[in-house]
Order: sequence, then C-alpha cells, then structure tokens
Amino acid sequence: MQTRTLPAEATYTIGIDLGATKIEAALVDSKGCIVEKLRTPTEAPGGPDHVIEIAVSMISTFFLRDASSPVGPIGVGVAGQVDSDNGVVRRAPNLDWRDFPIRERLEAAVRLPVAVLNDVQAITYGECRRGVGRGISNLVCVFAGTGVGGAVVIGGKLLRGSSGTAGEFGHMTIERDGPPCSCGNRGCLEAFVGGWAIAQRARQKVAAEPTRSAELLRLAGGDVAKISAALVGQAATQGDALARALVEETGATLGAGLAAIVNALNPELLILGGGIIEGFPDLIEIAQRELGRRALASALKPLRVVRSKLGADAGVIGAALFARENARERKISGPE
Amino acid sequence: MQTRTLPAEATYTIGIDLGATKIEAALVDSKGCIVEKLRTPTEAPGGPDHVIEIAVSMISTFFLRDASSPVGPIGVGVAGQVDSDNGVVRRAPNLDWRDFPIRERLEAAVRLPVAVLNDVQAITYGECRRGVGRGISNLVCVFAGTGVGGAVVIGGKLLRGSSGTAGEFGHMTIERDGPPCSCGNRGCLEAFVGGWAIAQRARQKVAAEPTRSAELLRLAGGDVAKISAALVGQAATQGDALARALVEETGATLGAGLAAIVNALNPELLILGGGIIEGFPDLIEIAQRELGRRALASALKPLRVVRSKLGADAGVIGAALFARENARERKISGPE
Repeated sequence: MQTRTLPAEATYTIGIDLGATKIEAALVDSKGCIVEKLRTPTEAPGGPDHVIEIAVSMISTFFLRDASSPVGPIGVGVAGQVDSDNGVVRRAPNLDWRDFPIRERLEAAVRLPVAVLNDVQAITYGECRRGVGRGISNLVCVFAGTGVGGAVVIGGKLLRGSSGTAGEFGHMTIERDGPPCSCGNRGCLEAFVGGWAIAQRARQKVAAEPTRSAELLRLAGGDVAKISAALVGQAATQGDALARALVEETGATLGAGLAAIVNALNPELLILGGGIIEGFPDLIEIAQRELGRRALASALKPLRVVRSKLGADAGVIGAALFARENARERKISGPE
Repeated sequence: MQTRTLPAEATYTIGIDLGATKIEAALVDSKGCIVEKLRTPTEAPGGPDHVIEIAVSMISTFFLRDASSPVGPIGVGVAGQVDSDNGVVRRAPNLDWRDFPIRERLEAAVRLPVAVLNDVQAITYGECRRGVGRGISNLVCVFAGTGVGGAVVIGGKLLRGSSGTAGEFGHMTIERDGPPCSCGNRGCLEAFVGGWAIAQRARQKVAAEPTRSAELLRLAGGDVAKISAALVGQAATQGDALARALVEETGATLGAGLAAIVNALNPELLILGGGIIEGFPDLIEIAQRELGRRALASALKPLRVVRSKLGADAGVIGAALFARENARERKISGPE
C-alpha cells in the first residue's frame, strides 16, 4: 500500500462542483481565490464510474500544470443527498446515483483526502467564508436552479443533520395536495419553484393559451416542447404576458416557502441564488414582498435578504475551502 | 440600590410555565426533580402587570415554605415569541402581550436573576436534560395544543435564532391559500392542527352534518358552540364518525408538516407532545404514516419519532434547569 503524506499547509486545494449537466473543478488558494477553473459536461448517462474518470482527469490537469506546488485535499459538492461522514452519495435523482461511495473511489484514484458534501452546502460554505455570509453566525441559503436546495449555518457552522441532508428546503410541503415532486411527495417547494417544474407549467399554459405568449413561443422556435425555465425568464424580461404571470406566481410561492423557513429558523441572513433567482426579473423583490406578508414580525425584524455574491464560483470555492478545513487529518491508502 | 447575592450553588431553582389560561410554578432541584408545584389561572385579561403579581405571589409561597434553602435563579417559559437576550416577550397573541419586559419586571419584584424563553423551548430544554432527549445532539420538538409550537436542538444546544423565535413550526405554510391563521398568514400548520383550528372546523362540520356526529354533539351538551378540540378527541375515542374523520385529517396534515421539518433539519429525534397529540387517538401513528410517505428516505433513515416523556411537567422542569444553566452570572439590582 502506498500512502501519500500531505504537506502541513497545502498551497492549494481543489474544489469540484458536480452537477447533473456539468462538472466544474477549480484550483483554489488558501484565501479562496480561484487560480484556475475547468468545466466539462458530466456525461451522467455513462454511470458514476465514468463520471469519476472525468473528474480524475480534471484533477490530473491541475497536477500536471504545476507539479511543484503542494496540493491539499479535494472537496466535492454533489447535487444530491450526501452522507458526508461516510463519503457516500445517498441519492442524486438528477445523476441517477444511489448509495455511491464517491469518496472511496476518488481517494483510490488520486491518493489525496477527499471531503464530500451537498452542492448547496458547498455554495453556502463558500458564501460564509468568502462571500456575503462572512462573519454571520446564523444564516440560511436557498438556491433555486433545476432543483431547489438549501443549507443552514448555526453558530457559524454548517448544519449537516444526522445523515448529512439538512437544508432540503426544496422538499418542504407548500401545498398539501399540490403537484407531484421528483422526490415522490406532492406540493413541495421545488414542484413550484424548481426549473423543471416551471418549464412544465409553462408548457401546459402555452399549449392552452398560445396567443398570450407570443414571445415565449418565438424564443422556443415555435416548439412548445423546447420551452425551458431559462426561456421563461428571458420572455418575461421582454414583456411576454404569460411568462410575466409565471414569474409572479413563482415569486409568490417562493415567498411562502421562505416565510416557513424564516419562521422555523429565525436566521439573521437569507442568501438567495441559483439560475432561477438570477434569470427571473424581479423574482427576489416579489418573493420578499410575500415573505413580508407571511412571516412573523419578530422573525422578520432581524432578517436581511441578500443575493449570493460569489455567483457561479461559490460551489467550487466552498468545496475547496471545506476540504481544507475538514479533510486535512485523514490519511489515504491507495492500491499499490 | 439593593443587590441580592446568589449562593454559588443554589439548592433549588424555580421554573414557571406561563400559558394563556394557567400559570404553573415549581420548585425544582438540581437534578430536575419537582419538590413542589403550584398552579393557578393566568387571569390574562387583567393585563401583564396583574399576571406578574400572580407569578410573584407564587414565587413568594416557595420562599415562605422553606426560607432556609438557597433558591437560585428563576426560569420562565412564555407562550409567545420571546426575545431571551433582552428578556422581552415580543408577541404573545393568546395573552395579548406585545413587547412586555417581563424579565425586568420580575427581577425588580423578586431580586433574583430571571431567564425567559418560549414555552416550547422550555419544554424541549426539559426533555433534553431530563427526558426523552437526553444525550441526543440533534432533535426537534413539535407541540400541538391550542397553538402549535416547536423547538430545535443542534449540537446539544437549544437553537434560539437571531431574535429568539426559532422553532415556530406552527407557522410554516402547509397550504399556500389555506385557511387564515392567528398570525395573519394563511395555511399555516397551526391553522390545521392547532386546537382552536380543529374546534373551528369541527363546529362547521357538525353544523353541516349533525346526524354524522351524534356523540360529539352529545358531549357538547347539544350546543355546537361548545365543541372543543378536547371533545373531538373524546368523541373520536368513542367512535364518532365525524370526529374520527377529523382526527385522520389532522394527523395527515401534521404528517405533511413533520415531513417538511424532517427534510429541512434532518434530526435524529422528533419529540411530539401537547394536548392534541395526547388527546387524539392514534394521531402519532397517522402522522408518522404520512411522514413516512412524504419525507426523503435519507432523512427518514436516522429518525426516531417519540412521545414527550415529562408530559405536563416538562415546561416547569425545563424552565428551572434553563435558569440554572443560563441565568446564574447576572447580578440583579432592585429598587431601594
């Protein structure tokens, strides 16, 4: 067995953001600055081992580029429910993974310690260390992209929960008998605010009222099946009436979900981010108005609502810093 | 100014559970055992100062009974949103209090340090120190009585939130456009599962279908207006069809709310208690079935659902122990 010994203080760590459609990897210094960033499609249909091969080849690129600088542990944020203690992805519906021992596989391949966490937990970690959450001890992040995820920081520490899945705000019930969700439940926040749900609703509405959504239909090349959440955002910006109504509805539902979170956790800061938040005009304002109407006055009083600061880089920065602070002590044994 | 100096280790502390209808006060030893307990109506319509007079006279009773034993700080759990840091009850709708400086008033009267917290936080503190939550570091309590409250313990510590109102699970949205709640929002968990909401729904249903609820109507002396949540529980136990349906409905909605909480916080233990939980036959089983259907498998895996162990004493025990561990250092100055 070979054991690679880590330098006491690694110059760089590597952060990986492993999503359903793309993998991003970055070489990150101890201050959380990105030295280099790579991006490639996930090729999820090839299966988890194929995805790991892609990630390993991205990591190798960094090693080859600068072999003289010591590289420390690797952090991986995965879009799914992650058991960080055991380094296992329990369930990642969009990757079609179940109980995949990602840490073991990666460590065997690269012989560096690996720390794994949920992708929104990684983003939140980044925002706390280097972004808009610096110095705040109680905060909540809600990210709306294809899915809706979240993370909680209490007393300056990321809340992992007893099996690593704390912060799954996307699967809070917002309507008892609402539309079915990807998780098997009904009426979850994600089933209203997730990109897949918005696209689904948009397609139904456009099919029913094509004249009300000329712009959206034009952007989709006249093909209802091509309507995506991103196109809804674009069409709303350009004044499409139906798209605009969808944004209003999405914002109001998001606001109801945020009120539940704010009442339950009474955070000082609520950080919002992700493709839907970024791509839908006025969404934060609409959601905040609804939040103000619905949440308890005493919970609203200390609250600030802000936009994610690190944007698309938060995931890799957070994963890299998380690895630096959480994976250092482990010794890795690889095959001979 | 007089200053009362506390003994280094008080033999007893006093715990007070200040609810909308009754005040309970107990002399509690350092192990959390109740030495003596008193109970009296709150007389809330008399206003907050009148209520404080009642509480002070209960405290005096303990002093008079055993003047030789050193009595330490006093803990008060209040049914409302409490700013513990400042010792202020921000809002207690059922007491009709708003921004009442309860700590200052009580300390001035009894010249002992007082610690204030929310009533369900006090109950949870009791369950963690001496009840079913001993040794568990991540747990959630949900109590359903007239209202629905909750509390969160993370890393063995009670989560207070940034203004002391963390754990207001009763005001999580369960149905976006559901029935109005006492908090001003719509479709809150409390608007389905709180005693007031159940009574309201029962009255409407009985008025509409009196033949389906012979037993419930009989228990209410034939007067629809006298139907309470407690009578619904009794009637359900005795086989009343309408009451039984109400219990099923309440359990299913509670289960949907619990799923949201479990997904968001991924606790190891979920403690359920309160008058509705105790008085409605099979409610925990119905709620647990729904929870099992709705929550994420990875969040359900580590979860145990249990009934409160300390029952009606949890509040005073928790408040007394909380005061012992949190209020000791403060020095109190009273009027000359």
